[in-house]
Amino acid sequence: MANAEHVKLLGFWASPFVRRVEWALKLKGVDYEYIEEDIFNKSSQLLELNPVHKLVPVFVHGERVIAESFVVLEYIDETWKQCPLMPQDPHERAMARFWSKFVEEKILFASWKSMCSLGEEKEKAAKLTVDAVEKIEGELKGKRFFGGESIGYLDIAVGWMSYWLPIWEEVGSMKILDPLQFPALTSWMRNFLEHPVIKENLPPRDKMIIYFQKRSQEFSSRPRG
Amino acid sequence: MANAEHVKLLGFWASPFVRRVEWALKLKGVDYEYIEEDIFNKSSQLLELNPVHKLVPVFVHGERVIAESFVVLEYIDETWKQCPLMPQDPHERAMARFWSKFVEEKILFASWKSMCSLGEEKEKAAKLTVDAVEKIEGELKGKRFFGGESIGYLDIAVGWMSYWLPIWEEVGSMKILDPLQFPALTSWMRNFLEHPVIKENLPPRDKMIIYFQKRSQEFSSRPRG
Repeated sequence: MANAEHVKLLGFWASPFVRRVEWALKLKGVDYEYIEEDIFNKSSQLLELNPVHKLVPVFVHGERVIAESFVVLEYIDETWKQCPLMPQDPHERAMARFWSKFVEEKILFASWKSMCSLGEEKEKAAKLTVDAVEKIEGELKGKRFFGGESIGYLDIAVGWMSYWLPIWEEVGSMKILDPLQFPALTSWMRNFLEHPVIKENLPPRDKMIIYFQKRSQEFSSRPRG
Repeated sequence: MANAEHVKLLGFWASPFVRRVEWALKLKGVDYEYIEEDIFNKSSQLLELNPVHKLVPVFVHGERVIAESFVVLEYIDETWKQCPLMPQDPHERAMARFWSKFVEEKILFASWKSMCSLGEEKEKAAKLTVDAVEKIEGELKGKRFFGGESIGYLDIAVGWMSYWLPIWEEVGSMKILDPLQFPALTSWMRNFLEHPVIKENLPPRDKMIIYFQKRSQEFSSRPRG
């Protein structure tokens, strides 16, 4: 284990932040040791390796430790050059970074909030999510993936939308992804989920539903149907 | 103006997000046209160029438009190779990205909140800020700049701490940057502010005090001393 090139990932099965790191590693064919963390009872290893945020994913490459999933994705792409994820053109790279941040801040957090809340708060968060989805719909027009014909950084960064978001919609009884309103995104979701590396690396849907029902109840602190 | 290489920056004089883009351009010796925006009465140009966030900075390079200051910094560094800002080593690059995000989320927003609030809320935000500053103090031990001997990406990304934060402390009557508690950061602040490019590209202190007094009153919606 003292191997300078040994790759280790501390994760949690239902985390979209961890899964995107796994997708990048699998796409590049990088072997890694996966360690499942109990995020409700964090291990001393997790606390030692990520004392700043105490969160998964934690990525360990030899002696180098990296947290924050987008930072890890760029590290992986810069370290293992096969199957490049980031575009080469600086402006396209900037767009990949811009939209991944946008989706994280405006869609991921807003849809999570909508799932975990009730009444007016839920409606407001769902509306903000839909408005944000509208903005990225335009980025996909006429494209198979965000980067064009093949899967890339932005697809992986926002890939959770194809699988987690429909589950959150079901759990939270909210409607975000209307296929008529968002045809390009709907078609991207299908393309993304059909990719062999993605298809084989998704957590089980039933288990996800149960898990997020529990989480959303904890967050809302109110009993839910 | 239809020049494919023309560089234009839409900014606001007191914004730390805009200033970091200017620092990068000046360090690299890139000529640019600066357009001051009235952020309280946004121009149609700003709204057209950054319809997603409607915020400065907006960076325009020929036909390419980029928002989000960290995204702009990476674009600048990848486009104009002279005086590289990002380290070459992937792990050092990851650390620069990790800490710039950390300081933005945990120090910038928390110290702003502390400045704009009162009583217990102010104390709590100030305490969170100090805790976060403690974490980055360790990154600077024995170093002139974050990257080592010369100024780099992380210095520019967090450079606002050397100038904006003491002003916010004064405006908000709060104590964050104790030189005895944070000797490495205090020494970095001095090194940063003494750098010729930085020294000559700072907004006037007196005007800043007046401006942020006004902003903090608006945000707190309560009269302040």
